[in-house]
Amino acid sequence: MENSKVPNHPVSTLQSSFLQACHRLPTDSTPVWFMRQAGRYMPEYRAIREKYSLIEICHHPEIAAEVTLQPVRALGVDAAILFADILLPAIPLGVGLEFAKGEGPVLQNPVRTMEDVMNLRPVNPESDLGYVMDAIRILRGELTDVPLIGFCGAPFTVASYIIEGGSSREFLKTKAMMYSAPEVWHALMEKLSVVLSDYLVAQIRAGAQTVQVFDSWVGALNPQDYEEFVLPYSQKILQDAKKENVPVIHFGTNTTTLLPLMKRAGGDVIGLDWRIPLDDGWKLLGDDVAVQGNLDPTILFAPLPEIKKRVHDILDRANGKPGHIFNLGHGILQNTPVDNVKAVVDIVHEYGIK
Amino acid sequence: MENSKVPNHPVSTLQSSFLQACHRLPTDSTPVWFMRQAGRYMPEYRAIREKYSLIEICHHPEIAAEVTLQPVRALGVDAAILFADILLPAIPLGVGLEFAKGEGPVLQNPVRTMEDVMNLRPVNPESDLGYVMDAIRILRGELTDVPLIGFCGAPFTVASYIIEGGSSREFLKTKAMMYSAPEVWHALMEKLSVVLSDYLVAQIRAGAQTVQVFDSWVGALNPQDYEEFVLPYSQKILQDAKKENVPVIHFGTNTTTLLPLMKRAGGDVIGLDWRIPLDDGWKLLGDDVAVQGNLDPTILFAPLPEIKKRVHDILDRANGKPGHIFNLGHGILQNTPVDNVKAVVDIVHEYGIK
Repeated sequence: MENSKVPNHPVSTLQSSFLQACHRLPTDSTPVWFMRQAGRYMPEYRAIREKYSLIEICHHPEIAAEVTLQPVRALGVDAAILFADILLPAIPLGVGLEFAKGEGPVLQNPVRTMEDVMNLRPVNPESDLGYVMDAIRILRGELTDVPLIGFCGAPFTVASYIIEGGSSREFLKTKAMMYSAPEVWHALMEKLSVVLSDYLVAQIRAGAQTVQVFDSWVGALNPQDYEEFVLPYSQKILQDAKKENVPVIHFGTNTTTLLPLMKRAGGDVIGLDWRIPLDDGWKLLGDDVAVQGNLDPTILFAPLPEIKKRVHDILDRANGKPGHIFNLGHGILQNTPVDNVKAVVDIVHEYGIK
Repeated sequence: MENSKVPNHPVSTLQSSFLQACHRLPTDSTPVWFMRQAGRYMPEYRAIREKYSLIEICHHPEIAAEVTLQPVRALGVDAAILFADILLPAIPLGVGLEFAKGEGPVLQNPVRTMEDVMNLRPVNPESDLGYVMDAIRILRGELTDVPLIGFCGAPFTVASYIIEGGSSREFLKTKAMMYSAPEVWHALMEKLSVVLSDYLVAQIRAGAQTVQVFDSWVGALNPQDYEEFVLPYSQKILQDAKKENVPVIHFGTNTTTLLPLMKRAGGDVIGLDWRIPLDDGWKLLGDDVAVQGNLDPTILFAPLPEIKKRVHDILDRANGKPGHIFNLGHGILQNTPVDNVKAVVDIVHEYGIK
């Protein structure tokens, strides 16, 4: 499809198994990367975290770039993912984001009313989140062998933090807004989808060669609610990114009953968590999308033979069909042994495509 | 089916729409009850909790019985469920259970090794948990119009608390035991399934007219792990209960991909959470089981017209087929408006079977 905004870095400039798989083209071996592949489980990262907070790392493009590169060097993965946090756009929105030590994100000014939604500040990605684009530009200068993945949170997942004021288990305030004040919900999702779309497009224009939209917590919803309250907004972001001519990955967990609707919302690649066997998930989605997944992150704490058995099982289920990107079903957990992560990369690459 | 242990209270003695539905027999209206229908959302319960801790209520059969009866009187539900906690059997096991204020259960001596498993004390339901059976006996004397549901946690869900030392989000230690020390896992599950089965059978013999096995957290597993590490142990409990000639309800959340295996493990009634539309879930399970569910507990915070729409949608999906017990997809949440819970009972009863 022709587009007036020709991407700076067309796919063809890089021989990448990851990009090939995004387009469901055959590859010599299955590409592999990991969500949260940069992070606390790596000693190199912990060394940097002794000096800088998470937000400080994000705010310093050179440091964010360095942290992004650490797992690429250490593990031999087939893609780099920008080190950032899905809540960075919440900072210029003015909701008072803080990362309390050991407690995850806390928002001082959660959004609960139409007035709160109206008070959200407009966001200009280049002026308000320029440090992210700067990190991308640095990384594109340094990465030679593997492509760079940019990302944002999906509107539902970002909204859930903004409404709850932090992490949640039941998403009670989020759902209560949907059910009791749908006009407030839709106004918030409208705003967030514009902000997140602009942010993602800015990342692509800065050089991200693929983008992933993280709807990590959307599995708390039933399909009807997803279709009415979420799909149109995720669709906007996924379509806007797609117009920039890069592959788009659409990710969630607990999504077995949502998969057909997530596919309708968009994405060249759909994430599968470990709850659904890869072949069953792919069958549910259809042959016209690629899939990413789906090892349970806790398997990385198992002995090597068990890890190998589980990785092989997933690759067996993919059965050599072009369009499988190996990954976990969710992010790498803290305290995961680095050697086991590295082992998975090698097992996947050695398995190859029969 | 004939059985040497004739139940004290055969089904036929009570004209109960709930028991009829468990047996997939037609009823005048769909029966309805709620998981955690006794609890903090009720002012009557909070009044009692000002004087007694959760454990103290459980330990005093008269108080436990009173708390069990509160929602039956206030709501007009079609079944009473014994007020108890799935972790009560953990007390005589010797794992140092405490209910820390506002923090949920904490176990001082979590089980991590084969030695820990071997050190678990044997449990005799009548001598170690006799207060539960006493509450059941009191309740059977007081309940005239609706049957009494007894319950226990399923081995996986109880094991997860015993291994993690409390609640968990990732179930990392639980899964790590499965994957890294399967012999310890199987030894633990073997012990727990005996203890839980004895406990459940004791409840039935004391007068429980139905039992529910709560595998609340099993949806953290993939189907392969469920089949290998969980199914045989849940099956033992479900089969042992079934031999006592009462209907058995098998409940979990996040179970879309596990439903066929949960049915294989057993249960006359299978619980469905809100993530799967009721008709889809029932189709997946087949016509030879009853289903229970499946309203999202957060809907109870919505305005009445929205609640009514959602309740009707579920009843429409059941389409008058005998064997649907209306319930939430999980327990009632704290701060749920009592009036809305009562409204659901009325909406379900007024809908009736066309």
